[in-house]
Amino acid sequence: MKKLLIGFIALWTMGGATAQETLQSPDGNLTLRFALADDGAPTYALDYKGRAVILPSRLGLELRGDAPAAKFGEELEKRDFGAPVSLYDGFEPIGTERSTFDETWEPVWGEQDRIRNHYNEMLVALRQPASGRVMNLRFRLYDDGLGLRYEFPEQPALTYFVIKEERTQFAMTGDHTAYWIPGDYDTQEYDYTISRLSEIRSLLPAAVTPNSSQTVFSPTGVQTSLQLKTDDGLYINLHEAALVDYSCMHLDLDDRNMVFTSHLTPDAQGWKGYMQTPCHTPWRTIMVSDDARQMLASKLILNLNEPCALEDTSWIEPVKYVGVWWEMITGKSDWAYTNELPSVHVGQTDYTKVRPSGRHAANNEKVKRYIDFAADHGFAQVLVEGWNIGWEDWFGHTKDRVFDFVTPYPDFDIEALNEYAHAKGVRLMMHHETSSSARNYERCMEAAYTLMNKYGYNAVKSGYVGDIVPRGEHHYGQWMNNHYLYAVQRAAEHRIMVNAHEAVRPTGLCRTYPNLIGNEAARGTEYQAFGGSKPHHVTILPFTRLQGGPMDYTPGIFSMEVSKLNPENDSHVNSTLCNQLALYVTMYSPLQMAADVPEHYERYADAFRFIEEVPVDWSESRYLAAEPGAYIVAARREKGGERWFVGGVTNEERRTMEVALDFLDPSKTYVATLYADAPTADYEKNPEAYVIRTGKVSSASKLKIDMARGGGFALSIRAFDPSQDAKLKRLK
Amino acid sequence: MKKLLIGFIALWTMGGATAQETLQSPDGNLTLRFALADDGAPTYALDYKGRAVILPSRLGLELRGDAPAAKFGEELEKRDFGAPVSLYDGFEPIGTERSTFDETWEPVWGEQDRIRNHYNEMLVALRQPASGRVMNLRFRLYDDGLGLRYEFPEQPALTYFVIKEERTQFAMTGDHTAYWIPGDYDTQEYDYTISRLSEIRSLLPAAVTPNSSQTVFSPTGVQTSLQLKTDDGLYINLHEAALVDYSCMHLDLDDRNMVFTSHLTPDAQGWKGYMQTPCHTPWRTIMVSDDARQMLASKLILNLNEPCALEDTSWIEPVKYVGVWWEMITGKSDWAYTNELPSVHVGQTDYTKVRPSGRHAANNEKVKRYIDFAADHGFAQVLVEGWNIGWEDWFGHTKDRVFDFVTPYPDFDIEALNEYAHAKGVRLMMHHETSSSARNYERCMEAAYTLMNKYGYNAVKSGYVGDIVPRGEHHYGQWMNNHYLYAVQRAAEHRIMVNAHEAVRPTGLCRTYPNLIGNEAARGTEYQAFGGSKPHHVTILPFTRLQGGPMDYTPGIFSMEVSKLNPENDSHVNSTLCNQLALYVTMYSPLQMAADVPEHYERYADAFRFIEEVPVDWSESRYLAAEPGAYIVAARREKGGERWFVGGVTNEERRTMEVALDFLDPSKTYVATLYADAPTADYEKNPEAYVIRTGKVSSASKLKIDMARGGGFALSIRAFDPSQDAKLKRLK
Repeated sequence: MKKLLIGFIALWTMGGATAQETLQSPDGNLTLRFALADDGAPTYALDYKGRAVILPSRLGLELRGDAPAAKFGEELEKRDFGAPVSLYDGFEPIGTERSTFDETWEPVWGEQDRIRNHYNEMLVALRQPASGRVMNLRFRLYDDGLGLRYEFPEQPALTYFVIKEERTQFAMTGDHTAYWIPGDYDTQEYDYTISRLSEIRSLLPAAVTPNSSQTVFSPTGVQTSLQLKTDDGLYINLHEAALVDYSCMHLDLDDRNMVFTSHLTPDAQGWKGYMQTPCHTPWRTIMVSDDARQMLASKLILNLNEPCALEDTSWIEPVKYVGVWWEMITGKSDWAYTNELPSVHVGQTDYTKVRPSGRHAANNEKVKRYIDFAADHGFAQVLVEGWNIGWEDWFGHTKDRVFDFVTPYPDFDIEALNEYAHAKGVRLMMHHETSSSARNYERCMEAAYTLMNKYGYNAVKSGYVGDIVPRGEHHYGQWMNNHYLYAVQRAAEHRIMVNAHEAVRPTGLCRTYPNLIGNEAARGTEYQAFGGSKPHHVTILPFTRLQGGPMDYTPGIFSMEVSKLNPENDSHVNSTLCNQLALYVTMYSPLQMAADVPEHYERYADAFRFIEEVPVDWSESRYLAAEPGAYIVAARREKGGERWFVGGVTNEERRTMEVALDFLDPSKTYVATLYADAPTADYEKNPEAYVIRTGKVSSASKLKIDMARGGGFALSIRAFDPSQDAKLKRLK
Repeated sequence: MKKLLIGFIALWTMGGATAQETLQSPDGNLTLRFALADDGAPTYALDYKGRAVILPSRLGLELRGDAPAAKFGEELEKRDFGAPVSLYDGFEPIGTERSTFDETWEPVWGEQDRIRNHYNEMLVALRQPASGRVMNLRFRLYDDGLGLRYEFPEQPALTYFVIKEERTQFAMTGDHTAYWIPGDYDTQEYDYTISRLSEIRSLLPAAVTPNSSQTVFSPTGVQTSLQLKTDDGLYINLHEAALVDYSCMHLDLDDRNMVFTSHLTPDAQGWKGYMQTPCHTPWRTIMVSDDARQMLASKLILNLNEPCALEDTSWIEPVKYVGVWWEMITGKSDWAYTNELPSVHVGQTDYTKVRPSGRHAANNEKVKRYIDFAADHGFAQVLVEGWNIGWEDWFGHTKDRVFDFVTPYPDFDIEALNEYAHAKGVRLMMHHETSSSARNYERCMEAAYTLMNKYGYNAVKSGYVGDIVPRGEHHYGQWMNNHYLYAVQRAAEHRIMVNAHEAVRPTGLCRTYPNLIGNEAARGTEYQAFGGSKPHHVTILPFTRLQGGPMDYTPGIFSMEVSKLNPENDSHVNSTLCNQLALYVTMYSPLQMAADVPEHYERYADAFRFIEEVPVDWSESRYLAAEPGAYIVAARREKGGERWFVGGVTNEERRTMEVALDFLDPSKTYVATLYADAPTADYEKNPEAYVIRTGKVSSASKLKIDMARGGGFALSIRAFDPSQDAKLKRLK
């Protein structure tokens, strides 16, 4: 990312030792109050426009008792861990530093081409006399929220330490409405529940739907990013930023006092983090606004991440793609090549000697069909899952040597297919399902990325389905978080973009590593073929999952009865076709799939036109209307261009939106094409009914658009061209 | 290894289903009896010359209840592990196969240039009607012992399974004498205790001396290879062969019934092994003889391993080496470069900006001194430990990113030193201390081996000190055993020989991977500088640790008061100087270090002559006298030559050995040089006193040689040369 320094004001002041400090946001709306409690525990509180957002909340960490430093040879005297110690109380202040930061930077890709990073900062240095340890708390206060983190300077009394638990509190002011999924060490693929905080305990069991790997830890545990709404209309979001070399944070609710406490993902032995000073935790973030749209527009998480670590980013490019995928997800065809093998021994099993099942999707003929389709419709890439050997027994066995990531099935000619694609201006997209066997993937990684370079792949979709190997580790623990980042860093050395599924939820690391082009880390469209997702899902994800970075949600399903692809699958896609179109705008991602099969797109070629046209990179984004769990309307201007695209989605309620196009240039005339739910459309009964209307619009236009239950709309807007548009009427 | 097929007789017979089967060794001395117990449990018993060695003992495995096979999508229905199942009883016989095998093969290196592999084999196929599973037991009966293993064919009812515990029994016939060390998941570096089996429970607590990583699991658990002796003079050894993709076996003693049961090393979650059919366990071995010398001469463990897996072995060469090592072990100098750093952040810490401690041993000047010394005295290589950054905090923190294995300290010029060495016909030996951080080592491995290739290293000493990372895993579990072999296999691709310390104890895998040139996996000479080892140690190791493969024992200490190197270390080396010389013969290894510092060798240049001369590869070996815990005398003929070398060691008792040289060619005259303890020598009071005598010998010679307490002798024998040896008298 190019950094564009607009302004920078540093005002470092080392204050005296005081137990109370206050910090204000640049616009003065947010006030942070830091104080030491009577027992010397650090606390903080946050106000917004004079209203309490976070009541006084304790900060600190519980540590595993340390082993005293030892030298080799002293090994001979076996040591135990000593008495437990904490970094939780008994602190005294030793100083405060304050500064202001204001810079505008340019992301490699994004919702907008310039991002302002403007905050007031306060560092509070604390000493724990009983241990001789120093711990700093760093607060960054933005106009739209707070970031805070623990910092552990290099010091004699604290070098290595093991975290038993982080105990960061977020004390709520009441029994807010929450948009939550169950806290889990291994999956985020849950449908959202909207409830009062006090109702989480009773609703959580039903919210824990089965998954391929899951570890729920508390009857009131929930995941971040957590969206909340107060009864007096404040929107609050709790999450984290820059999760590096640390365990992912969950929130455990004390539902008598309405206080969340951080709960980190443990390792195989139950410990939460291994630290070496100087070091710090990720940022704990609290976004707040009285305007829901501001929650979506916030760039706080990205801003709290480090600038781009890659010197050359010229090879990174947003990607719109199709793929050999939905037909396996629906059960129409298989990833596996054969049904004959009781199990696969990678490197020994001879696939040329087995009988193909006839259900293997990633075959030469089908892949060519997709390549042709991509070339005909302007898609950059074709994802092919199931191209490589090992799928016959990949799932459910915590198998160590599960894939080699380099050997194609006999019916997938990797060289010929890439040549065929390249000749048509299309790339294949690589797929690395790891089956969560992380050591095996790391051992294969260099060869796998080298193979990609050889055949011209520049993007990989990776997957972490199933329980982690090394066994006992969890998807969101420090060990695996380290792995995911390692994969991204190694990929960058090969000029490869990564789109990791089932990995830890994003926390803005795509700013630092923009080749992390996408992630899943939430319940994606695949669940529409696994029994369906709630219609309100897509009205919540932008408030929660997308706060940390883009999601490869794989929208674009045009045929909502899954049984049409697989008669044995009676799943229904809980969305109208226009809702699917809208997702290309409402769910920002530089990596967007058109997930359905070509035949379905060919059947609705006029509606498909929107997916063909919609960009995946933007100069400007506006959130025109938003309410979590209800509706979102977003407008975006294409990167470096003048075309605008608008998308709107609603929940299970029919809704009419008035969409003012006042973001358009008042001096120009435009032509808009509206893709809207037909009057009879309904996500359950008539999901594929839509109307398309084209007409002239201007910045003065206000469109009244009806959205069906589970519906939505899409709007593409381009400059008026007198030579061809003269006869167009005004769009209403 | 070249295979030289001398003879092969296969006699496959599929017998009918019978619950009792008998197998005899080729010479008829050993009889194996297989039977099914009343509850359908397989049992075996072993006799030697009509005397019971193993009483009827049960065979079987306890499994974790299986998850039924699942497909992706079916993930949505979370499964539990079901009811526990076992492969322990309820079997019925379905057939027996018998065969005879006789072949002679040539190892790449070894105690002898040809090894005969001659056994009778019986495969007993069993079916468990309740589960529909089939399990086979394969027995190989040699003249000197038994190998047995479990085999799990590919079958519908058994594909993936998890071992809760292997329950292989070894029922002893009485309260034998055992030469044992405590069972431990993480270290083998214990001194041996000699006791009755019934005394293990009371003696074990004192036998568990502190170590850098240790996990004792039972009050009566002991390690293999376990040497035993019966009151009527039978020698029995229990161990395993070909430990691949499985957890290392310990033995847990039921000391009321004198029955050992196998106890596997667990993973982080307590499970013992992850299996996929077709597969098998390692061989469980029972060596037996009424002649202790036969226990040492046995090649049973090697024979039970697979033939060489490497196509080209021309680059593998036995190595005699010196090293910058003993002075760090004794505490005279440091591996670390500086004392200034609270901790090291590999890749960030700038060593050019820190003050050297002045105690860093691996500096250019010192390494050159060692290179000069090696070149002057005919050593092939110089090991240098502490050459690479990271040693300041390498130990005791289960640090993940602890070394990078490629960055030298500022005072170690890797390019210049290798050039300097090569110009003198010497190589440097690489050192990779991993600090047990296995993932970090695997990530660095390719770069580390590539660096070795670049600078001309062809051997690496690797180390696994401290607790394993991934945390919760153990040194001897399946996870790490997989890692050690991975390191050897990857090294072979780079034509690199591996000498791994603190890795799992060898089980003969050096036959299959002869670039596994050495291992530690026992209490080595370093412990003489950590307070000392018992004098009987070296009279036991060849019966136990060396059964599985060579040990890098690092003998050759010439100065027994460690305080002479480091005044703060009052350790005493519990050995005479001649005992140290003898170890080059009695402790077979293709990798032998002269471990002391050059100054000490220069002080005793005449005695050092033996170390200069002694080969590290042999055509022929004879064990002339042996009693575990008491004495060993071995004679070996150099590979492809006529020189013989003899070594003898005793325990803490003074002993006179009559050494008959009847292994010499009766038609020739020889000249022998004897290095013997001086009459006043004593490992405690006068360890460095020796005498050297040279004289003529022949096959009729019988030398009476006195060994001091903790003493030994060495003898080098070469052809008589009339031109220079005419005046020599007969050696007595």
